[in-house]
Amino acid sequence: MSQSVTATSATESLSLSELTALLQQIFERHGTSRAVAQVLADNCARAQRDGSYSHGVFRIPGYLASLASNWVDGQAIPKVEDVASGFIRVDAANGFAQPALAAARELLIEKARSAGIAVLAIRNSHHFAALWPDVEPFAEEGLVALSVVNSMTCVVPHGAQKPLFGTNPIAFAAPREGASPIVFDLATSAIAHGDVQIAARKGHLLPAGMGVDKQGEPTEDPKAILDGGALLPFGGHKGSALSMMVELLAAALTGGNFSFEFDWKKHPGAQTPWTGQLLIVIDPSKSGGNSFAQRSAELVRQMHAVGLERMPGDRRFIERAKSLEAGIPLGVEELAKLRALAE
Amino acid sequence: MSQSVTATSATESLSLSELTALLQQIFERHGTSRAVAQVLADNCARAQRDGSYSHGVFRIPGYLASLASNWVDGQAIPKVEDVASGFIRVDAANGFAQPALAAARELLIEKARSAGIAVLAIRNSHHFAALWPDVEPFAEEGLVALSVVNSMTCVVPHGAQKPLFGTNPIAFAAPREGASPIVFDLATSAIAHGDVQIAARKGHLLPAGMGVDKQGEPTEDPKAILDGGALLPFGGHKGSALSMMVELLAAALTGGNFSFEFDWKKHPGAQTPWTGQLLIVIDPSKSGGNSFAQRSAELVRQMHAVGLERMPGDRRFIERAKSLEAGIPLGVEELAKLRALAE
Repeated sequence: MSQSVTATSATESLSLSELTALLQQIFERHGTSRAVAQVLADNCARAQRDGSYSHGVFRIPGYLASLASNWVDGQAIPKVEDVASGFIRVDAANGFAQPALAAARELLIEKARSAGIAVLAIRNSHHFAALWPDVEPFAEEGLVALSVVNSMTCVVPHGAQKPLFGTNPIAFAAPREGASPIVFDLATSAIAHGDVQIAARKGHLLPAGMGVDKQGEPTEDPKAILDGGALLPFGGHKGSALSMMVELLAAALTGGNFSFEFDWKKHPGAQTPWTGQLLIVIDPSKSGGNSFAQRSAELVRQMHAVGLERMPGDRRFIERAKSLEAGIPLGVEELAKLRALAE
Repeated sequence: MSQSVTATSATESLSLSELTALLQQIFERHGTSRAVAQVLADNCARAQRDGSYSHGVFRIPGYLASLASNWVDGQAIPKVEDVASGFIRVDAANGFAQPALAAARELLIEKARSAGIAVLAIRNSHHFAALWPDVEPFAEEGLVALSVVNSMTCVVPHGAQKPLFGTNPIAFAAPREGASPIVFDLATSAIAHGDVQIAARKGHLLPAGMGVDKQGEPTEDPKAILDGGALLPFGGHKGSALSMMVELLAAALTGGNFSFEFDWKKHPGAQTPWTGQLLIVIDPSKSGGNSFAQRSAELVRQMHAVGLERMPGDRRFIERAKSLEAGIPLGVEELAKLRALAE
């Protein structure tokens, strides 16, 4: 643990394990089981470590408000159902999605390696985190992983007048020889909801084309989007089609709720969307030709050769390396608040 | 067969089977086996029937030029390899991708139904058609299908200076109760290459943001894009990430070529990209909760309830119904050319 003071703010740096332990204590203190606390703390601390601030400790108040409202069950024990040689279902039992994934993870890997491809269909689950932490570990084991999760109504389908879809991200991870895996995690909305919240908090305007106000008129004000407005899909009708696909895969195919189906009115403070999540994992050692990881490394080399400076995910890997070196910096006030929550 | 004359052009209408038979004769006459001719003719005629003009009879000269150049083998016999309970590989043997899919189709459906999910990895294949005809038939059998195919260098990765990716489409199909399946087929380029060719032929300008000229400067002139220029990905860095994913899935995971790897210089006239294609088919009857087709119908109802007038694919289904009623209209000159090619 080290301290530093800059002109604008004092920070204190924690190691990943220190931050994880602190967050775990917070989750347990606010009603989750130890197992759930471990999974959520690990996820949230890794986001903070990698500079994914919209899904780091910024999310803790939302988690705790949802737990306090009894909207999500922090003690839930996921039920894993082994349905077929390539198909696993998990009923997350109104708990978080990540413990459901953790419960099925070994079986999912085993099936992907034996069947060549396997799907994990999680329903009845709450996902309040970034999606890349769910796929990246598979790439580290030499597997290719794709995941989608739907969320809560805040995106207007292209050509419609009112919001219906969630921000509905798509995350993908693939191994790469001699380097970090190729990983991306993209909201199918023009901007992630967490980034709108952060811009609103900082008083920044957004670029044009991100959202509409409560009258359905285009706005660059993040507060107008949050105050009864809505987001737009990225890339017009194409992003909208992908967002629809995410609803179908993450909800219709899992047995979970669509983003517009759950009603949390009786749980003031609830913030975690109660939907579903789908993961598809493929074993590239089953494919023809050269090693997948060699081929993906070749693709990245060629992308750099045509002038690409930064791969998707590179910023996170750079932040991760910095955090490993110097610790994860947190504002002293923010850290004091976290410590108070852990008591 | 019926004839009609409008103010601007005379057309003659063919039934689907008449057009398919004519196209089949053309393919056979130009060196394909009967089996390959049947598959390509069926694919091309269905595109024309559905108003997918950029992938209908418009493509015939490109097919024939490629066959004449000995770049693609119209007699190729695909080799199907049953690799695992959920994984099939096909070596298309330098033939077209569609006959490779046709050769593995029954096994793919059988595996999807028994394993819950299955993947078909086609390599060493040429794909010169729309992608929706490859996925839609699975939805008609109650299955969910996703396919990606890479093509040929013509898209500049977001943040790079020169083209590298292909137009790299993603197609998706899902069953829907009481209605046509939900189907979309979207190029991850801002515009499909076929649409640029059609705009160039008609002398139309393109909307801004679709492509760059040979100096890398933005242009709205389709001819400048075709004359040494390039396309941009749709949706900025997000569409670019998806295009990269298509390269990884369709080439690295199949053992096929990346869009930038093949060299057809020794085959003047060659137009068919020599790459790979991936299909993932999922059996939604394995999922928890209500019937998938009921759930997807509910999603579409809600999309219409928020003001959506047209679903992706609706235009094709409308054109299809018209063609079923009145035949597939073709310009009399175009038809005369096709008939001459069949002789």
